[in-house]
Order: sequence, then structure tokens, then C-alpha cells
Amino acid sequence: MSSDSTAPSQQVSEWLSKFGAALDRPEASVAAEMFEEAGLWRDLVSFTWNIKTLEGREAIEAMLKATLPEIRPHAWRIAGEATSENGTIAGWFTFETASSRGKGHVRLRDGRCWTLLTTMTELKGFEEKKGATRISGTQHGVFKNRQSWLERKTQEEAELGYKTQPYCVIIGGGQGGIGLAARLRRLDVPTIVIERHDRPGDSWRKRYKSLCLHDPVWYDHLPYLPFPDHWPVFSPKDKIGDWLEMYVKVMELNFWHATECRSARYDAAAEEWAVTVEREGQTVVLRPKQLVLATGMSGMPHVPTIPGADRFLGAQHHSSRHSGADEYGGKKCVVLGANNSAHDICAALWEQGADVTMIQRSSTHVVKSDSLMDLVLGPLYSESALKAGITTDIADLTFASVPYKLLHTLHIPIYEEIAKRDAEFYERLRQAGFLLDFGDDGSGLFMKYLRRGSGYYINVGASELIADGRIKLRSGVNIERILEDAVVLTDGTTLPADVLVYATGYGSMNGWAAKLISQEVADQVGKCWGLGSGTTKDPGPWEGELRNMWKPTRQAALWFHGGNLHQSRHYSQFLALQIKARMEGLSTPVYGPSEVRHLR
Amino acid sequence: MSSDSTAPSQQVSEWLSKFGAALDRPEASVAAEMFEEAGLWRDLVSFTWNIKTLEGREAIEAMLKATLPEIRPHAWRIAGEATSENGTIAGWFTFETASSRGKGHVRLRDGRCWTLLTTMTELKGFEEKKGATRISGTQHGVFKNRQSWLERKTQEEAELGYKTQPYCVIIGGGQGGIGLAARLRRLDVPTIVIERHDRPGDSWRKRYKSLCLHDPVWYDHLPYLPFPDHWPVFSPKDKIGDWLEMYVKVMELNFWHATECRSARYDAAAEEWAVTVEREGQTVVLRPKQLVLATGMSGMPHVPTIPGADRFLGAQHHSSRHSGADEYGGKKCVVLGANNSAHDICAALWEQGADVTMIQRSSTHVVKSDSLMDLVLGPLYSESALKAGITTDIADLTFASVPYKLLHTLHIPIYEEIAKRDAEFYERLRQAGFLLDFGDDGSGLFMKYLRRGSGYYINVGASELIADGRIKLRSGVNIERILEDAVVLTDGTTLPADVLVYATGYGSMNGWAAKLISQEVADQVGKCWGLGSGTTKDPGPWEGELRNMWKPTRQAALWFHGGNLHQSRHYSQFLALQIKARMEGLSTPVYGPSEVRHLR
Repeated sequence: MSSDSTAPSQQVSEWLSKFGAALDRPEASVAAEMFEEAGLWRDLVSFTWNIKTLEGREAIEAMLKATLPEIRPHAWRIAGEATSENGTIAGWFTFETASSRGKGHVRLRDGRCWTLLTTMTELKGFEEKKGATRISGTQHGVFKNRQSWLERKTQEEAELGYKTQPYCVIIGGGQGGIGLAARLRRLDVPTIVIERHDRPGDSWRKRYKSLCLHDPVWYDHLPYLPFPDHWPVFSPKDKIGDWLEMYVKVMELNFWHATECRSARYDAAAEEWAVTVEREGQTVVLRPKQLVLATGMSGMPHVPTIPGADRFLGAQHHSSRHSGADEYGGKKCVVLGANNSAHDICAALWEQGADVTMIQRSSTHVVKSDSLMDLVLGPLYSESALKAGITTDIADLTFASVPYKLLHTLHIPIYEEIAKRDAEFYERLRQAGFLLDFGDDGSGLFMKYLRRGSGYYINVGASELIADGRIKLRSGVNIERILEDAVVLTDGTTLPADVLVYATGYGSMNGWAAKLISQEVADQVGKCWGLGSGTTKDPGPWEGELRNMWKPTRQAALWFHGGNLHQSRHYSQFLALQIKARMEGLSTPVYGPSEVRHLR
Repeated sequence: MSSDSTAPSQQVSEWLSKFGAALDRPEASVAAEMFEEAGLWRDLVSFTWNIKTLEGREAIEAMLKATLPEIRPHAWRIAGEATSENGTIAGWFTFETASSRGKGHVRLRDGRCWTLLTTMTELKGFEEKKGATRISGTQHGVFKNRQSWLERKTQEEAELGYKTQPYCVIIGGGQGGIGLAARLRRLDVPTIVIERHDRPGDSWRKRYKSLCLHDPVWYDHLPYLPFPDHWPVFSPKDKIGDWLEMYVKVMELNFWHATECRSARYDAAAEEWAVTVEREGQTVVLRPKQLVLATGMSGMPHVPTIPGADRFLGAQHHSSRHSGADEYGGKKCVVLGANNSAHDICAALWEQGADVTMIQRSSTHVVKSDSLMDLVLGPLYSESALKAGITTDIADLTFASVPYKLLHTLHIPIYEEIAKRDAEFYERLRQAGFLLDFGDDGSGLFMKYLRRGSGYYINVGASELIADGRIKLRSGVNIERILEDAVVLTDGTTLPADVLVYATGYGSMNGWAAKLISQEVADQVGKCWGLGSGTTKDPGPWEGELRNMWKPTRQAALWFHGGNLHQSRHYSQFLALQIKARMEGLSTPVYGPSEVRHLR
């Protein structure tokens, strides 16, 4: 078969047909030979019951040998028309395994597979009831002592966690926990979400006043219920809070608000958790089979220990506790840190008339919001993408179809373009002494986000304040010690301070496992997030996927869920299917669990 | 041009082109000649600033002569492909007027127009901000004393109705008022919704426990925010209540709950209303320019005056006050009426173990829910319609494209089919003494709904109870008088009764005008609803459209809004555009206001 002479769709169809036949026999080595030598196969649950990228023919063949007998993939069918661009043929397809249906994407070069994506969409026999299979809502006919919807719901709320046990408990009721709970509800997995705040959405509402989402609306939809088409591009925090609160209600989630999780212990013999929570002044012990920590990537504040902090007479708090600038007009404010929150907080303080100094300890990647929208997200998540037929589902799968191994190579040229387009902007920042970077390899924001979850600011205005000196900047220094009314920097200078904000980021999510379960379990599981890229704050070796996210961990029945709204939306699908499969007693052999190489 | 030799799309394009040219010159008579002699043109606001069907060439020509100079229609363009079926060519199109853009539908027979629909979709220069023109949500840049979204919203809520006046007040916060308010919000028309209940959705929650929507989910979407695809086919009342409550919140409506409207007076000189309401124990006088009564077709209970009612020792109430069967197990219950509510209430009482008798005064049209879904609504509102590409928008416009003059002719054969399909079911009902009809002309449920808003039951189970005698039936009689513990029927028999429910329907919506404004204004406006078909409870002469609904009335600045969820959704679009046009001071010459011929 030749890439020149045959139509793209036919090439994809032929490749799928041959590939399907090889898997069917099964001949793992023949199938692996259909990949390029360094071909990449990203599997989201379908084959591996894991989130796994197989890199190179050898890894692909090994995976197939291990999984084919039980997974029994078949029914590979092209979906829609394939396309051809610069010698790469790309196409969508559907397929089945013994227990599931899936969607996939393939890129072919010279007849061989460069990248393959396989994703699980539903479990056979346990499909979501939607569309034509939705429930009736009323039972036509007449029945003595019929229960109304409200009576059933009220009974469920009264009994779940007391008379009956949830199969799954999710700690954390932000967008992550909520979206996952909605998927589990649609899959009929009894679930309780534990949230310490009073209302769904409070984790947004309680943050600093000026906060808006930095990602645009097309990227931010929750599962099942997209925002209406007038929704602002950048949702203000209280508006997204209201949306989450509404979502919890209409999706009928069992959401235990104002409830604090005290501890969780796994009983390996009983194969269940004992999760102790405080609800309405009462201690309740829940006994779920599965426990999800959805406490947020930004859930575990990291506050540096600085000598003298206890003597400081002004206000000091971590950025996560900073509720806004209202009280600080006219005050001398020092903000330690130079990432998103630091910038937002500095700008709001300046708008309120405070005297603001940002302490930048190390370089930061800055990208203008417009450039990010136009060049990075726009092709998949924008009004023009929608017009071009790229629905949220297609965008998510397209995004997922690029293995992390390749992703930086796609981003480097985009950020080179951004650096040119916004050269004047970056120059002004440099002139002001701001330490800039584009990531160790110039791959920009999203790679930094994946590798270390920090180190960047999406500029919506604060950079201009820094460039023209309205926000004062001290860069390349840290706070050495704190006095009663000032901070002393590592360069020996002293800055008077009435207010000190630690915009110093967050620890790895396994810190929550340490806090709620035990240090032993946290260490057993290891660090969450990061790819092992060997770049700053992302030590190797290379992992190929985010550590511990949405996939089995080294602690049985413990899962981590989080990330931005896009990731929460898309990856909750795979986490929910893994949990549902276990509830239904399906065989879920996990292929290639990761080694634990870093503890935090 | 010939219907045989030319492709449908080309025929429609040619017709539109010739029609557009005639309107452009303008030559009303030439344009009218392009219709069949009895051709029908249904206009929703675009030409007439009214909701109006012109019946026959003469009426069409007269309308064109009156409206063309100002309306200046142009840019007629076919949209999508036209179709051909049984000699009728049908196609969609878009067009513009001087002040608006619109969508339309045309049916051609032998080259002439049989039916034409023109609908206004947006006002030029006052388009809804959506999709690519949606607001940013955050103002990038930095601004001293910036207001957050929450602060702006809180300020608006505090000031609207007090420091500033709404342009529009809607009395009634059911699905009608809420959907209209959402449209007005998107059009930036300051609006307050007045609702006497404590929470949005309470008008559903407070009804009898077993109530579910009788219409299926595809028919019931609110504007802008469709139900997610797992939503039950028939929404339980409390679930729809929660949805409405959520909708009010996320659409940012100014919803004054627990607020009672006391009176409304129009000041013709000032061209504004004084609407007196009680809110949180305070009397507030609102001064809007426009007043909408969205109190519901079923808002004004009709309770017959029966001698002895004041002596009855048991519970007696109108069906609208009936909260459910829970207290009535084992009781002797008499339900007066034989329409939807009567059937639902009887069934729930029987399920609760009550002894139930239904009093059927006159014949009822009964149709099985399944048959209604399959044969009547299914072609436009169902999962299979969606699969065939019939979105809610297309379904609504298709539904609207059949002038009321013709609608019964489409429905008669459908109900003939239903009568055959369910013959055995109807026979069992007749055997039980139930008085059945299919409407005066056999056109069934929806025509009864349009003509009189009553006289039918969508069977979801109660008919079976009647057929086998578990619900006792007394038909062809009425209650003559009421004793302390029984009712005496017009046939002289006495029925012991502990509970008496008046499922006796509702009065015309202009009863609300009488109650809130004055009898004089109610009479000036006349009866709402009904087509003037000359059938039972719908006295002629023929009106062509529903009386007073969603269009200018004989009282300046007074509007009526209501109907089922489908009508509320679709016709709120036209009402909202009429109100917006007035707010912006556009010229809105109303063509052909109706005569008032019936007072209630």
C-alpha cells in the first residue's frame, strides 16, 4: 500500500483491517510490525486497564502478548473520512474488546503506524442510560404505594452512608470530584462526594475576588451538560461556583457538603476502606470499596518555612487563603512567588491601591492570554473550531491522540511563533528585570503544566503593571527572614511589609494520602503528576504518562483525580469506567503498572 | 417552472428569487399571485409585528401593501436542500427585513405557494451575545476599583426595582415566565419575574405527588440550555422543579420569589405600569414599561358553585391545591372531572388504597401516551427525530410552519390510526361507561388543547383502572348538591364522600387581568387562547391564531405568555423580540390586531 496512490480513508481502512486480522489470530509480532520502529500506542483503559503509552515496537508487542488473550479486540471500523497532511494520514475508528466498546485515532506514515490511540467509551452490558435508552421517569401503569421520584431520592439521601454503603467515596467536591461523581451516577455506581465547604462551588467562591478561569469556556465544559452559548469566555469564579452548585443538584449527586474527611484506612482482607468523616457534628464511618482523592492539584498548599514568620505583625497567608484585595488598599504588600496566583493577586492589590512588590525567586514562563487562545487552544477549543465541526468530544480525543513523548515537539514551534509575535511585550518584561523562560526546551505552558504543574503565568494584565513598575519587582532573590514589619531578602535588602502573601504553590497530591491515610501509603503510591521528562522539577526517568492520575496506583482501590477542567472532564470518563468495571466484577488485569521512583 | 422536471431546491430558490423581486419593487399583487388562491402565510413578527396568519391571496396582498414600505424584506436565500413529497415541495430559507433577520419555510404545489412561514430570529444591531460574540467574562488589563462579576450582580439585585426600574415585569415564575426572562436577559432587557412561591419550580413541586410531565423530554427543553441526554422521558414534577430553580440561577434572572402581585395600573400618559407587589413584608411599586402575565393557562382555578359545598365536613379542594393522596388511604374520594388531572389524581388515590369515584360530566378524549409519542410527537420530538437531524429548533419551526387552518387535517388521519391501533383499549373504556370522543371533528388531542385547553387525558395508567372498575365511574352526570358527608348526583343517586376534589379546570388567562388590573381591562383584552374553530368550547368566528397569546393585545404594553413547555420555549422568542424592539425604540407597526369577540 502506498501513501501516494490510495485515498486516505482507504489506507486507514486497510491498515485497520490488517491490524485487526493480526490481533485476531493473534499475532502480536505481526501487529507490532505494522508500527514504525519508534511508533507510539497510547491506550486509555481499553487494552491495559491502565493509562499507558507503549513506546516502540518492542513495548507494543510485549503489551499485546500480555493482553490479547483476554482483551480480544475486534470490529475495527473507520469512522468518518481520514485526512492527509504533510505525508501523514490520520483517521478515526471504532473498535470493541471482549468487555467494552471504544474509539480510536491512528496516524500513518508510509503505510506504518506512527501513533495509535485507543480509548474505552463504554462497558458492554453496563452502558449509560441516555438518548434512546434513557429512563422513562414515570412508571406507566398503576402500582399500590408507588414511590415518587422525590421520595426515592429522599430515601437514598437518608440511607446512603448509613443504612447502605456507597461503592465509591470521592474526597473533594471541586470540578474534579463533581464531574467524576456525575459519570458514576450515570453508571449507577453509588457514590458520595465529601466536601469540606458549605456549598458546591465554594472552592472557587472562597478564592481571591478577581479570579476568573484562565482557560476559555470551550475547554471548560463539564461532562454531559455543556455551558450555554452565551457563557463568558473566562468564567468569573463565583459564576463557575454557581454552575457547579447547580450541576450537583440537577445531576442528583450525593454531595456531603460541610463534611470533613478525618482519615481513611484500607482493610485489605475485607477489600474495603473505612473513611471517617465529620458531618453535621457527627462522626460517620463510610465503607466504600473504592476511594478517590480529588482534592485538587492545588489542594495541598506549600508554605515555605522562613525564619521569623511567627514574629510578623501584619497579615500573612498562603495564596489559597487570600480572599481578595479589599482590605489592603494603601498597605505595603509583599507577594512571594511569580506564577499565576501571584500575578493575579498582585494586580488586584494594585487595583485596590496597595503598594505591591512581587518577589520572583526563579524564572517564569509568561504567555499572553490572547496568544494562548489563538495559537495553542484555538485549533481545538474555540468558536471557530466548533464551526469547523470539532465538537468537545472530538477535541478531547484529538488532544489525547498525541502521546506525551511527542507533545513538546508540537508545542516548541508554536511558542517560537508566540515569542516572535509578542517580542515587544517580552522585551518590556525583561527590561523590568523579570526573569522569563519558555520551559527548559522552549515548549511553553502546557508542557510545564504537565511536567511540574507550575512555573507560568497566563497574562491578563499583570505583566503590563510589572513592565511599567506599578507592581514593583524583585527578581532572583528569596525572602531570607521575616521581621515584625518587613522582610529581609537574600540580597540583604529589607522591604517594609504590612501584608505577606505566599503564592508558593502546592505539594504533590500524594500529600493528601499522607494526611488522610498514612505516610506509608503516600510513599507506597509515590509522587503524583509529572512525566519524568528530566526537566526542571520533573525528574526522570521518563514515564510516558502522568504519574498516578486516573489509573490504578500501588495502593489497591486508591485513585487520584484532578487537573484542569478539560482533564477532569475527559479523564473522569476513564476513571469512572475503571471503577464501574470493578463494581460489576469484570476482570480488569492492569498491564504495566508504573514503578514508584519519587516520593513527592 | 414545473414541479416534475426541476430539482426541489432549484424550484424553491427560483420561487424565493421571484418572490423577493416582487416584494422589492414592491408589487404586492404579483407576490400574492405566487400563492395558491387559498394559500396561507403565517408570520411570526417579521412582517406584521404580530402573530398572524394571512389566509388567501386577498389577505396576503392587503398585508403586503400595508407592511412592505416599512418592512423592506430582502435577501431571501434557501437554506439546506428542499424536499419533495406527494407533489409538495418544501424548503427552508433565511431572509431579512429592514430591522431584523429571519428564518422561514415554504411549501409549493405546482409552482405556487401553499404555505409560507416567516419568523423573526433577531433584531439587527441588537443580537444576543452568544458564540463568537459572547462576553469575555473578565476584562483583561488592570483597572482601579474593578468590580467583580459577583459585585456587579449583587448591585443589580439590590438596585433593580428600587433605585432603577425594570423595563419589563413578568407576573408568574413558572416555566413560561422563566424561559421568557432568560430570553430577555440575553437581549439585555432589564426584567423582574414576580413569583408568589418560595422557590423557582414550586409551582410544580406543590402539585399532586404523582405528577410527571405528560409531554416527553424532547418537547420540553427550555431555551438555550437543553436537558442532558439522560434526562427522563417524562420528568417527575420535583425534578423539573429543581431544573427550573437551577435555570433561574445560572441564567442570572432577577427572580423575586415569595412575592405577591397585588395590582397593576397602566398610566397611558407616562406609558408605564405601576405594579404593586408585596416582597419580604414590604410593598414595592415597580414601574415597568411592559407587563407580561405569565400566570399560566392553568393559573386561574375554576371551581363550580354547588349548593351545600359550605356544609361538607370532609376535605374539598380544587385539583390545583391537591398535594397528593398520602392522607387519603381508605377514604371515600369523589373526583369531579375527567381530564388529565382528574385521572392522575384518581389513580394516585387508588394506589394509596382510597375508594375512588370519578364523576365524568361530559365526554373526554383519551389517548395512550405511547401512541401519542409514536404517532403525534415522534416525527418531530423523539430520539429518532434527533437522529434524523431534526434538532429542537428545526422541530419547532416545522411545527410552526403548519397554519392552524390546516392543522386538524393533518391530525385527523393520525387519530384515525390511533383509534384503530388502540381499538381494544377504547372498547374496554366504553364498556365501563366512559364517554369518549376524539374532538368534534376527530382531530384529537392537540387541536383540543389549542381550541379549548381541556377535554383530554393522556393515558399513563388510570384508564385501565377505570376500565376494570377499580376506579369507579359515574358518567353523564354532575354533582347537584353536596351534603355533610356525601354528594348527590343529577341522576338522584347519593355518593358517600370523605374527600371531594374539583378537577374542574381553569378559566381564561384574562381572568388574571381582571384580578390584577381591572375587569375593564380584562374585557377590553378579551378571552385568551382558542382559535375560534366553532367547535365545543371554542366559539367562532375563526381567528387563525391563538387569541392574545405572545402578541400585542388591546391593552397597550400588556402581554400574555403561557402554554406547554414547547410553546413557552418557542413563542417566548417572538414575545422577547417584540419587547426588545420596543425598548430600543424601533418602529413596530402592528398589522391586523384581532377583534375582541369573547370576554372569557
